[in-house]
Amino acid sequence: MKIYDISVGISADMVTWPDHVPLVLEQFQRIADGEEANVSRMAGTVHIGTHVDAPLHFIDGAASIEKLPLDVLTGPAYVAHLQNASVIDAEVLNGAGIPQDTKRILFKTRNSNFWASGEKEFRTDYVGLNASGAEWLVERGIGLVGVDYLAVAVYTDLTTVHRILLGNDVIVLEAVDLSGVEQGRYELYCLPLKLMATEGAPARTILIEA
Amino acid sequence: MKIYDISVGISADMVTWPDHVPLVLEQFQRIADGEEANVSRMAGTVHIGTHVDAPLHFIDGAASIEKLPLDVLTGPAYVAHLQNASVIDAEVLNGAGIPQDTKRILFKTRNSNFWASGEKEFRTDYVGLNASGAEWLVERGIGLVGVDYLAVAVYTDLTTVHRILLGNDVIVLEAVDLSGVEQGRYELYCLPLKLMATEGAPARTILIEA
Repeated sequence: MKIYDISVGISADMVTWPDHVPLVLEQFQRIADGEEANVSRMAGTVHIGTHVDAPLHFIDGAASIEKLPLDVLTGPAYVAHLQNASVIDAEVLNGAGIPQDTKRILFKTRNSNFWASGEKEFRTDYVGLNASGAEWLVERGIGLVGVDYLAVAVYTDLTTVHRILLGNDVIVLEAVDLSGVEQGRYELYCLPLKLMATEGAPARTILIEA
Repeated sequence: MKIYDISVGISADMVTWPDHVPLVLEQFQRIADGEEANVSRMAGTVHIGTHVDAPLHFIDGAASIEKLPLDVLTGPAYVAHLQNASVIDAEVLNGAGIPQDTKRILFKTRNSNFWASGEKEFRTDYVGLNASGAEWLVERGIGLVGVDYLAVAVYTDLTTVHRILLGNDVIVLEAVDLSGVEQGRYELYCLPLKLMATEGAPARTILIEA
């Protein structure tokens, strides 16, 4: 049984969404300074690294992170390798050979190379879903969609795409690193921090070979 | 298949270890204020809520969180209900009927009532392991130990107990809420955030009925 860690490592110099609060991760108490223990602090938005968006992110009054069902965050998932896609639209999805019974889908695109190569600059040319792709997922009854960059949506249509997905209770998992994973079926365990009444949370995420 | 969420909810007013940096969890960007999305920030130590300690917490140069093996953080686990224990020592463990093949063990004590009842004040009278209990676990080849308060060790012997466990590569999981879980066998999925080169990390943690 092989476990794939598809979470990106969180460090102070990693790429984050622009215009957000700075990411801090530092030791503030050190054994080397005579303390009993090493202790670190962290600070940042709740959308750092591999993370989950809850409906509340784009829809006031909607469900927050701790309300997301664990039986959707975990279970069988399909990794689709969209090698040549520059946008994930309905046409790309129709041609991707996604199994009919898929309830959780992760898209491996050229974005995964950004993580593999240690790219530190924010890119706007990442591969994301457009509105037709988001609607395709809703129509197929998908419960969770994962992408390999910091947003599920193309940079030019962030709000529309998030609203289609989150408004239909599709859990959005962002910034997974699929560079070491082949297309196919896996068991997904995506466990966002239980941040109460919050619209997002970082989530250690693994795939287990089915 | 029933999933038990044994993670405590993280909120700004929750109990934290004393003398640490304040826990912040707040929305700083609001749809109600005309923004496109709700966005929150968090700040605190990496030892908030349900969390994991890595050896680096008490041993300089030892393994940090991202190095902890996922095949120890996940897998079969035994929940032992120590109803009357005020300290978890070798004698208590000898009498607890822990199955011989146990590799991951979680202790349910009266601490779990603190979470169930929403206790907000830090308590020093929690139930924890002492040195003889920690040595017992090491001798039994335990790979992961979970407790239901903010420290694995009794308040009067924090350093010794942590060093025995972490010095023997026992993963320490702290502040799980076992109030809704019966004694017995489960599958554990404990997924700490992948905080690079850091001595601890919050970890959403679930048990699945075996």
